[in-house]
Amino acid sequence: MTDLKYNNELKQKYAHLSRTVNEEFINIHPIQRGGILTPEAYKSLISYGDGYSLCDNCLKGRIDKIENPPVVDFLKDVATYFNIDNVMPTAAARKSKQIAMKVLSEKFPKRKTVIIDSLSHYTTYLAIETNNLRVKEVPNTGYPEFELKSEDFRAAIEQLQKDEGELPLLVVLTHVDYKYGNYNNPKPIGEICKEFKIPFLLNAAYSGGILPIDCNKSHIDFLACSGHKSMAASGPIGLLGFKDKYYDDVMVHSKIEGNLTNKSFPNKICTFMGCPPVYGAPLITLMASFPTIVKRTQEKYVKQEAEKANYVIDNIQKIKDLKVLGKLPKKHPLTNIETPCFEKVAETHSRRGFFLREEFKERGILGLLPGISKEIKFNTFNLSWDQVKYFTQVFLEIAEKYHLI
Amino acid sequence: MTDLKYNNELKQKYAHLSRTVNEEFINIHPIQRGGILTPEAYKSLISYGDGYSLCDNCLKGRIDKIENPPVVDFLKDVATYFNIDNVMPTAAARKSKQIAMKVLSEKFPKRKTVIIDSLSHYTTYLAIETNNLRVKEVPNTGYPEFELKSEDFRAAIEQLQKDEGELPLLVVLTHVDYKYGNYNNPKPIGEICKEFKIPFLLNAAYSGGILPIDCNKSHIDFLACSGHKSMAASGPIGLLGFKDKYYDDVMVHSKIEGNLTNKSFPNKICTFMGCPPVYGAPLITLMASFPTIVKRTQEKYVKQEAEKANYVIDNIQKIKDLKVLGKLPKKHPLTNIETPCFEKVAETHSRRGFFLREEFKERGILGLLPGISKEIKFNTFNLSWDQVKYFTQVFLEIAEKYHLI
Repeated sequence: MTDLKYNNELKQKYAHLSRTVNEEFINIHPIQRGGILTPEAYKSLISYGDGYSLCDNCLKGRIDKIENPPVVDFLKDVATYFNIDNVMPTAAARKSKQIAMKVLSEKFPKRKTVIIDSLSHYTTYLAIETNNLRVKEVPNTGYPEFELKSEDFRAAIEQLQKDEGELPLLVVLTHVDYKYGNYNNPKPIGEICKEFKIPFLLNAAYSGGILPIDCNKSHIDFLACSGHKSMAASGPIGLLGFKDKYYDDVMVHSKIEGNLTNKSFPNKICTFMGCPPVYGAPLITLMASFPTIVKRTQEKYVKQEAEKANYVIDNIQKIKDLKVLGKLPKKHPLTNIETPCFEKVAETHSRRGFFLREEFKERGILGLLPGISKEIKFNTFNLSWDQVKYFTQVFLEIAEKYHLI
Repeated sequence: MTDLKYNNELKQKYAHLSRTVNEEFINIHPIQRGGILTPEAYKSLISYGDGYSLCDNCLKGRIDKIENPPVVDFLKDVATYFNIDNVMPTAAARKSKQIAMKVLSEKFPKRKTVIIDSLSHYTTYLAIETNNLRVKEVPNTGYPEFELKSEDFRAAIEQLQKDEGELPLLVVLTHVDYKYGNYNNPKPIGEICKEFKIPFLLNAAYSGGILPIDCNKSHIDFLACSGHKSMAASGPIGLLGFKDKYYDDVMVHSKIEGNLTNKSFPNKICTFMGCPPVYGAPLITLMASFPTIVKRTQEKYVKQEAEKANYVIDNIQKIKDLKVLGKLPKKHPLTNIETPCFEKVAETHSRRGFFLREEFKERGILGLLPGISKEIKFNTFNLSWDQVKYFTQVFLEIAEKYHLI
């Protein structure tokens, strides 16, 4: 046996795993707002917390074929919602991207380069790297807006054809980026991809569940979404949307056979290692939140969420030496602000860069990175108007305290 | 926009995702018992239900480096517990196997065959298939015990060397198999692998968290565990244990670089796509259950659990035409019984093969497969003695009803 003892010390160490962030504080953490559970998801979480709970009534050996709870229906509904032919759950949006690239690599073995925008999340790069592919970035307009121009995608495709004599394997657009929260319209880039007959993937990890997406209208072949980032689901769960023309490439059935037993598993999908790892809480909470997701991505609610972010931005502009980065007005509430004003305060503050997070925390607001004062990222998504106004007021109050207004 | 409407119909469809299995029934489902949450895990689940909750205080950009909650400590403790050098979380045990094979394929590119026992789970085959490797099965003794003999592993290795002039890439032993619940001692097979210098993986999806495991003693290089199957965690979460000698092979740091931005991510691990997908509920519930896992795998509790399974078996032997498969007495409570007696009843029963599940369900017991009467799989793990006795009594009562005693 091992050296680890079951004793009070061990028990105590893991006895207090509680999280008060959302109960006692307003959490403005940029990656946390979209994943907060709906009341319906909470209820289902409590019912389906145990291990493999969703698979009680698995009769066909495949999670995507479970009828009770209504997984089959859900996958159809969510495909309708995104207006794409098929949707399968995955471990996360990063996995959806990795799968799409793998599938295409096998279909087009000569194409070795993926064109991505220069605001891509690190996981887009890792999906490329783990598929042994090359990356080609599309530039942005740089400081302070970091805008992507669709014609730069065309230029990158043409340049690649010239350099390599091959089409890119895939073009990836980050719908809303992690850094500036810039919204990028997929349609013009989808049209360019269609023109060149290049598969087009929309990375909607920060947008699917927050903004409406119509894949068909934007000529999107593959869609990567994140339940825990933006669809009010308990992590981890992603979605992979894909067009019918890639159905057989994605849904690769197992062909291996036991040399003695002759066992085979033709019903199991290799791409997902049988079933994607979303067997309990992740899928059930995503399903429970789905009606709310449909509702909150209706135009009027999306507009309200943009108004909240723009309200904060409009009001804090009066602070000296502060600059909002990215495109304005905001369409997505993830916001990045340069704050040389606070950085200067930090230089002589006894708590150094930590002072800013602490000032906010004292006033009931959490989610700022500790130790950093020169840049703030926040997300007002789904805060009430009262909370948005309070956050703005706190922001101004701290600025006033340090004579920055 | 899409055609899917937010309306009452949509709301109703996803409004009743509740699961009464464990509240109103005794659940003897073979894959559900080990994943039932501890009260501590339940508490943490409620705190950490939201999306990405575990990552509130991620300061180093890696889930395995989070100190609050104590992930770093936990990974060390769980490695100590299994007596192996390193442990990383994964999406599931299947993913742990897939990763181990990928890592070894890159280390030993000439070795193309994985030797596995003939009681392996389908995901062991899929891990082989998705790594483009070949499978070589080790026979078992067949009906009714399906026993594995360690010398058959030696024979398979020698045969492979003769046939291919190469060592196998890996030997995989299923510690406890999904079908008969047979316990296989890894030590003699580990010793053979050590002698031949072949990496040895123990698939402990059904055992890690139920039975004690000492990797060092059994010369185990890689360990695959399942939190949702056997470690009282909310799914999905697996563990990959590995020896220091494979550390650099598993922990492959990203090397990709943006061609325009020069962005790079040397801190991120390619093998896990940055962070394995266990960001919220899965890892926190596993951590919260860990002290209980340490406790329940102590000798006296393991013995009690075996006694429960053997109690049921001893008592139901009086039913005519019923045969317990697998090795006896049981060490692991997953049990498989041939029931030609019930199959015969089904032939003339108005509910056909469904009658058996319904008879059990009427008496408060769930977890039998619908429609199947010729074979029963059940798992008594962590049932109270009262529940075990009641289950036995119900079993006999149904047999009596149909004049099988």
